[in-house]
Amino acid sequence: MATLDAQLQTLMWAAREKTLALMADHYEVDAKTTFNDLVTTVDKETERFITARLKEIDPTAQIISEEGFGDEVHDLSGRVYIVDPVDGTLNFVKQQTNFATMLACYEDGQPKLGYIMDVMNQTLYHGGPGVGVFKNDHPLNPPVDRGLRGSLVDVNYGLLFTNHHNVQAVIKNASGLRLYGSAGLEIINVLEGRLGLYLSRLKPWDLAAGRALAEGLGLVVKAIDEKGLDVLSSNLVLVATKQVADDVFALVN
Amino acid sequence: MATLDAQLQTLMWAAREKTLALMADHYEVDAKTTFNDLVTTVDKETERFITARLKEIDPTAQIISEEGFGDEVHDLSGRVYIVDPVDGTLNFVKQQTNFATMLACYEDGQPKLGYIMDVMNQTLYHGGPGVGVFKNDHPLNPPVDRGLRGSLVDVNYGLLFTNHHNVQAVIKNASGLRLYGSAGLEIINVLEGRLGLYLSRLKPWDLAAGRALAEGLGLVVKAIDEKGLDVLSSNLVLVATKQVADDVFALVN
Repeated sequence: MATLDAQLQTLMWAAREKTLALMADHYEVDAKTTFNDLVTTVDKETERFITARLKEIDPTAQIISEEGFGDEVHDLSGRVYIVDPVDGTLNFVKQQTNFATMLACYEDGQPKLGYIMDVMNQTLYHGGPGVGVFKNDHPLNPPVDRGLRGSLVDVNYGLLFTNHHNVQAVIKNASGLRLYGSAGLEIINVLEGRLGLYLSRLKPWDLAAGRALAEGLGLVVKAIDEKGLDVLSSNLVLVATKQVADDVFALVN
Repeated sequence: MATLDAQLQTLMWAAREKTLALMADHYEVDAKTTFNDLVTTVDKETERFITARLKEIDPTAQIISEEGFGDEVHDLSGRVYIVDPVDGTLNFVKQQTNFATMLACYEDGQPKLGYIMDVMNQTLYHGGPGVGVFKNDHPLNPPVDRGLRGSLVDVNYGLLFTNHHNVQAVIKNASGLRLYGSAGLEIINVLEGRLGLYLSRLKPWDLAAGRALAEGLGLVVKAIDEKGLDVLSSNLVLVATKQVADDVFALVN
């Protein structure tokens, strides 16, 4: 596992170089489902680069990836990689910063290793359960648990309009709401103790790497809807410190 | 004015050193009006430092400041300085980053010079109408105007719960909502083109410096409530590119 970890870290840094080179060149932006659900040729080329390299490193593994260059995965037995080449594509397009590249390695449905690269800040968060979590070469300690009232939180604002699951009460009982627009960067903020909670509807590639890292620091990763945590489908999930998670579950329905 | 500008820039860098030294030491945190309206001894000491230095630089000017070490200002004739020692105090306390120090110089009620220091990123935005706007030593160009649908926006989330002034429509017609938790940093994001709109209820010290910089780049700074723009009181104000401002005024009531 240590050799694989080293190979995947090297891959993440190579993917960063690839992304920066593609950004510096001309790239195309297209809408997927709506005007604010974007994909770019940088997403696609970076994903192609990562999946090709994963096939060399681990030829028999399956790959789940956002833009479709991976496999059709229906069962999670054995080793499965989950790839998000550009997490926070709107930020990528509108801000040229505040986006991440994410990769996770699962075995028999369980998170083993997670990687979140904050591309523009040149910072790789990596690790997993039993391995610990590192920010580049520095080990991270679990964040201070300030409970909900003492914490800044990030709650998907789509939920907020309709007060879905009573999330307005969660926000009103927290210190304040922040929205950064990239699941990977929100989860980094929870790892670093800058947010006590991230609550959003997440697709497999949005959560997989962050879950490995969050569980590696003893944080809570849990679905708040009836469906439970599912690596293959979209879920309404929280990533939080223990006390914050307890406070949230007392409020949501 | 160029000499004064140079003196005020030097003051901003000195204030940054002061803030960093106070952060490294023990500081106290107190609640002001509610559990999430905080003030720290760093706010107070930094403000005391800035106001004392302003009294040396410009002995006859008046000073409006958040924590009360300035003057009681009732009219804006002559030169008035407006000081916010720590903008984004919640971020300061919970994140130890994402806060700003702000200073503005007004003459007869008109913005002349503005300064926003992103303390942890060591970046000073400075300038004003007729002077241009600079990021440290580099001149900034006006941001690209993408209109509301093409822009990420920051809208105070207190307004969102109640749909005050129909702000939910503003958000639904934008590319996405972001919330960073510091008026100074939100306005920097508008200057840099990373946000097309910042809309919030702002106190004099939240807006004064940002207004000088935004108007220095030809951006729109305008009250959306009946009260109009008022340097001495709290307003519901937008800072936006021209097309975004037009799009917003067509939606709000």
